Amino acid sequence: MKIQLALDRMGIADAIELTRKVADSIDWIEVGTSLIKEFGIVSVKELKQAFPEKTVVADIKTIDNARYEFEMCFEAGADLATVMGAAPLVTIDACMEVARRYKKKVMIDLLNTSSEQKRVLMKYKDAILCDHVSKDEQEEAGSQNRGTTSGQPFVEPAIQMAAAGGITLESIGTLRATMNPAVAIIGSAITKAENPAEAAAKFKQVCHQEEELV
Amino acid sequence: MKIQLALDRMGIADAIELTRKVADSIDWIEVGTSLIKEFGIVSVKELKQAFPEKTVVADIKTIDNARYEFEMCFEAGADLATVMGAAPLVTIDACMEVARRYKKKVMIDLLNTSSEQKRVLMKYKDAILCDHVSKDEQEEAGSQNRGTTSGQPFVEPAIQMAAAGGITLESIGTLRATMNPAVAIIGSAITKAENPAEAAAKFKQVCHQEEELV
Repeated sequence: MKIQLALDRMGIADAIELTRKVADSIDWIEVGTSLIKEFGIVSVKELKQAFPEKTVVADIKTIDNARYEFEMCFEAGADLATVMGAAPLVTIDACMEVARRYKKKVMIDLLNTSSEQKRVLMKYKDAILCDHVSKDEQEEAGSQNRGTTSGQPFVEPAIQMAAAGGITLESIGTLRATMNPAVAIIGSAITKAENPAEAAAKFKQVCHQEEELV
Repeated sequence: MKIQLALDRMGIADAIELTRKVADSIDWIEVGTSLIKEFGIVSVKELKQAFPEKTVVADIKTIDNARYEFEMCFEAGADLATVMGAAPLVTIDACMEVARRYKKKVMIDLLNTSSEQKRVLMKYKDAILCDHVSKDEQEEAGSQNRGTTSGQPFVEPAIQMAAAGGITLESIGTLRATMNPAVAIIGSAITKAENPAEAAAKFKQVCHQEEELV
């Protein structure tokens, strides 16, 4: 299980500084939607330049204008970019096409999609599908709702899944034991920890268990 | 019928220069999603500074993190900001709350929402609901699909509507005669016209007819 560090609600310099502290424990770096909308695509560029060896995810949450947005992300150095599952299928198709052209990857965010939409989205076998409890839903429900409000989508075995939203050191063990996604997306449980390096190391202990046993 | 000029896929300086040419004919200025994602929230700030007397719409397409994004838009000078109708209702509620606090307005983008979602969204009577044929859907269907693929949502009389996507000088008359939205959102039919000022003036002739007759 890979750890994707989600960087949100901070400046670019702070994001880089924080990532340096935890870089040994995390696998992927997510440039959060809030960084992209506040500072523009330069946020993706600067994070990739600072960590060229890491996989960088641009959480651009495309819902239209797919080619423009995805080309912009990949030109800025992103290795993955996100599209909303709630987008029209022509938009997701266009994202897949751009990713293939750049030899990069698409993450489809299942936020607020219906069961029927999730079922249809399973056809994108080259994408990573992200089961996402949103920030606003977390704030509404309190912090302990990972795994309770999101609802496990029907997942074909061939599909790579990610999980995002409200993952804590308390819930990561359960997530691993139940859904066991390919990618666990962790934000404030690391970025707002008193000691981010220590928190990230603890997540790594749980998430990389398998690899250590091999 | 107000004209909202949608500025997309261009630099901030070009957007300001283009808006100067057409300012006499248009009512509202939309800072497009592509400007926000490419250059950040400074795009909204600079457009509002250049045109303080105009209503500026930040097309931020919020789908999560509502308070952060909407406060950012209004602090940057936006008079309206957009949220996706496909977002969880807690997200839309938060947008409405922030807008009330700032005495600003919300536009709800109906892109790819189901009939059931549209019906529920009619409860946001202080918002403007935007019937939206997306760029990607237009590119898929060719340019002449306004009014044919979008499908007119059931609209309560008290609801203010906007229409976006593929509106041209050829289709604006029909739009006015049928849906007659409060706001017509026009992008490339002005921004990519050979003579944007002339194109905008022609749209004004149709859209402001009523006012001229009074």
